[in-house]
Amino acid sequence: MTDPAAPRAYEVAARWVEERILAGELRVGDGLPAERELAAQLGVSRAAVREAVRSLQAQGVLRSSVGAGSAGGTKVSAMPSGALTRLLRIHVALANFPLTDVMEVRVALERLSARLAAERHGPQAARDLKDRLGEARDAASRGREAFNDADAAFHVAIAEAAGNRLAADTTIAIRESVRGPMLERFRGLDDEAFRGLTEDLNREHAQIVEAVVAGDPAGADALVEAHIRTAWVRLTGEDDAAATMEA
Amino acid sequence: MTDPAAPRAYEVAARWVEERILAGELRVGDGLPAERELAAQLGVSRAAVREAVRSLQAQGVLRSSVGAGSAGGTKVSAMPSGALTRLLRIHVALANFPLTDVMEVRVALERLSARLAAERHGPQAARDLKDRLGEARDAASRGREAFNDADAAFHVAIAEAAGNRLAADTTIAIRESVRGPMLERFRGLDDEAFRGLTEDLNREHAQIVEAVVAGDPAGADALVEAHIRTAWVRLTGEDDAAATMEA
Repeated sequence: MTDPAAPRAYEVAARWVEERILAGELRVGDGLPAERELAAQLGVSRAAVREAVRSLQAQGVLRSSVGAGSAGGTKVSAMPSGALTRLLRIHVALANFPLTDVMEVRVALERLSARLAAERHGPQAARDLKDRLGEARDAASRGREAFNDADAAFHVAIAEAAGNRLAADTTIAIRESVRGPMLERFRGLDDEAFRGLTEDLNREHAQIVEAVVAGDPAGADALVEAHIRTAWVRLTGEDDAAATMEA
Repeated sequence: MTDPAAPRAYEVAARWVEERILAGELRVGDGLPAERELAAQLGVSRAAVREAVRSLQAQGVLRSSVGAGSAGGTKVSAMPSGALTRLLRIHVALANFPLTDVMEVRVALERLSARLAAERHGPQAARDLKDRLGEARDAASRGREAFNDADAAFHVAIAEAAGNRLAADTTIAIRESVRGPMLERFRGLDDEAFRGLTEDLNREHAQIVEAVVAGDPAGADALVEAHIRTAWVRLTGEDDAAATMEA
């Protein structure tokens, strides 16, 4: 096996681009130097530069005009939110973080989203939240997967209403990353337990929306925290989650 | 310009790998099918598979045994924390999020880290925190860049002491992403203002360490929040940051 710490030629080129971006020298819309020039400057092959460009394209950092593959005509792109969400989900899936740890981060981010949503939501966001609320109610009778999707959509809608794109992106990524494990746990419940749980969750969702729409940040914050933590206890039987609740 | 929404052949292959990971069908250490097989199965060229593999390697999702470039011998890798941090930093740099938004997310994550650090830190973490504290004090006399680095290292040490890897990874990524803008603002201060600010920040750091080491989660949480928000007001002159403080 090769040493994973030793940078390959294409990594040298990729890092060069990343460093320029982090230093603020390359901004969205700026073009890269021509492939030949960049290769000469970095002392790597043109193939290595091409590979770096492809890899950064895949990550949403660069986009190419026609004639993809050449560095010339390649521009820095505003990495779409979806790219971050995708990578964070994969990271959470691979890193195999304890689910309790993921839940703690989720609580921190969703409390922020709920607070900001209560402070800043507009009329459209209020309508969206009520729509998602209704959808989660309807979905409960259509089974575990439908409810899980609708529940995720509800939490995403709160993050969207927060008007803080970074908070929304990270909240969405974390909620999406627990979609699989949550579904597994929903499936572990018998029909009666599942019905009881969805009724509780939907009632709590309604209370959260009420606090958000009423412009009550502290209330929305506390309700979201209690909602995520009690659902966690009911789904896992672990009451660890309550340990930091008073803080 | 090509349509950025239309997936290219290598994206088809990359998405296939990602979907298997998210579904839990590919786990860390699992090998990919041979390049030829995967290409045939997905109806793309072997070159496209190779490109997808390289791109996922660059993201830390895959690693190759000798003979890099072929899908056979390529294994799923535990995406290192550094990879997430790097991508999150680039995302924050490119997305050009309002700094107030970044600050809000930072407060949410660092409050969590401080709370968990107070609950869970071991003796080694307590020593590390005190070391970072001393280093930030020393660094203040060595100028803006040295202090900025030492300040970042202090906040990273709290995240590390939290014993929640996901919280630490995201906290670190956010703190790192504001390293440039923070430095710029430190540079905007005259020497006296800079000295006064570093004295305040170092005193606040010491209070935070005291609360963490004393095992006081609520105290550590509140001190970190006040610390980040008041520094923000002093560095930017914006008092928006205080708006959600009471929540």
